[in-house]
Amino acid sequence: MIPPDIDSAAEWPPFYKATFGKIDEERKRLLLEMAVAEFAQKGFNAANINEIAKRSGISIGSMYSYFESKEALFLTIIDEGYRVLREALTEAEAATEASDKAGAEGIVSLFARLLHSSRDYARKYPELTQIYLDATTQGLAPLSGRLSYRLETITASLYQRSIAASKAAGTIRQELDAGALAFYLDNLLIVFQFSFASDYYRDRMRIFAGDSVDADDGEGLIASLVDLVRRSVAPG
Amino acid sequence: MIPPDIDSAAEWPPFYKATFGKIDEERKRLLLEMAVAEFAQKGFNAANINEIAKRSGISIGSMYSYFESKEALFLTIIDEGYRVLREALTEAEAATEASDKAGAEGIVSLFARLLHSSRDYARKYPELTQIYLDATTQGLAPLSGRLSYRLETITASLYQRSIAASKAAGTIRQELDAGALAFYLDNLLIVFQFSFASDYYRDRMRIFAGDSVDADDGEGLIASLVDLVRRSVAPG
Repeated sequence: MIPPDIDSAAEWPPFYKATFGKIDEERKRLLLEMAVAEFAQKGFNAANINEIAKRSGISIGSMYSYFESKEALFLTIIDEGYRVLREALTEAEAATEASDKAGAEGIVSLFARLLHSSRDYARKYPELTQIYLDATTQGLAPLSGRLSYRLETITASLYQRSIAASKAAGTIRQELDAGALAFYLDNLLIVFQFSFASDYYRDRMRIFAGDSVDADDGEGLIASLVDLVRRSVAPG
Repeated sequence: MIPPDIDSAAEWPPFYKATFGKIDEERKRLLLEMAVAEFAQKGFNAANINEIAKRSGISIGSMYSYFESKEALFLTIIDEGYRVLREALTEAEAATEASDKAGAEGIVSLFARLLHSSRDYARKYPELTQIYLDATTQGLAPLSGRLSYRLETITASLYQRSIAASKAAGTIRQELDAGALAFYLDNLLIVFQFSFASDYYRDRMRIFAGDSVDADDGEGLIASLVDLVRRSVAPG
């Protein structure tokens, strides 16, 4: 169910007002950083937009000239986080295409790169990753309904392109259901990513896979996951 | 890193006071049901313990004679949810052992059963599943630190036993890392489970795997996941 115009998702209208788009970059970044810290620490419901304005050194009047509501600010943050993540995904896709000899490994090497990128992203932006995790909870369902399509179609589309190329190159089984395969890969990916940003998931990863994940930065676990995935899609 | 005394986790002391253990079953169940509804709807931070007492028809004095704090009540709910889930897990394990001819499929058929059980559990207890999802977020990290070991060791131990039996029966590759394999299987399982209890994950599942998941109750997706897993662990 990937819509034909999926790539235009990146160009959907922003959640902020036009005024916010016009202020200088430094002021913009400071406000977004303060908002990220507040939402990550308190969660959406308890986060206070007045507090964010105060810490950013702007009046509450200016704040509402930039964002219609706390909801709009929250959605802007999520969008911004996803913009950064999307860049990492696109890089992983380009790197995979460049290194693959005619798509030698295709989806498997893309998956390996995505595991590395998503771990590094979670490390670099733990708060953005925590906010994304919050957005998936049912308490934020009234908000998340506006998000899921926008966020998830981009990742789904990335997998679909790579799966199609790998099938064309004959490196994976032809009869694989592309949607189910993408779901399988992304489920493995997101829990791995959460394991580097949320204490609960980090503890869980240690309970399952042992303390060695701290010693080697998850590299052994990545190697095991990639090996399991490689065998799961191999022809024959 | 599975401790030797893992099975005793089920017998760890409860989070409620002894008084709560002594009241009659109907009163107990009503209180837990009201608490589940409140926590699932509002999330931990916004949930109100006075409101739960009122809806259960008890005084706030009685409430605090049962539970030291809102935190203790929340942890009791999670524990109760996990007790029910654990029963389902144990059933899946027993059914797998009974149907397997000398562990013919072992971990793969256990995984298939777990996908079914966890989907059915999420359907039957959507609020408990949503509360579990909430507990994994970073905002609840001060609470979740007390939970992860208690909850996750039981699942990890279940996988470990089945993986060891399958290796002994020679139905999966000997060189597989048991911890990494358990992590891989459980990551697939929990996101599948969340997909039947949270709107965000449900939408995401539809975006990835198509609308057919509604028509066939996820059966096609289960078949695809099990097939991928079977090939990923097969010997040779």
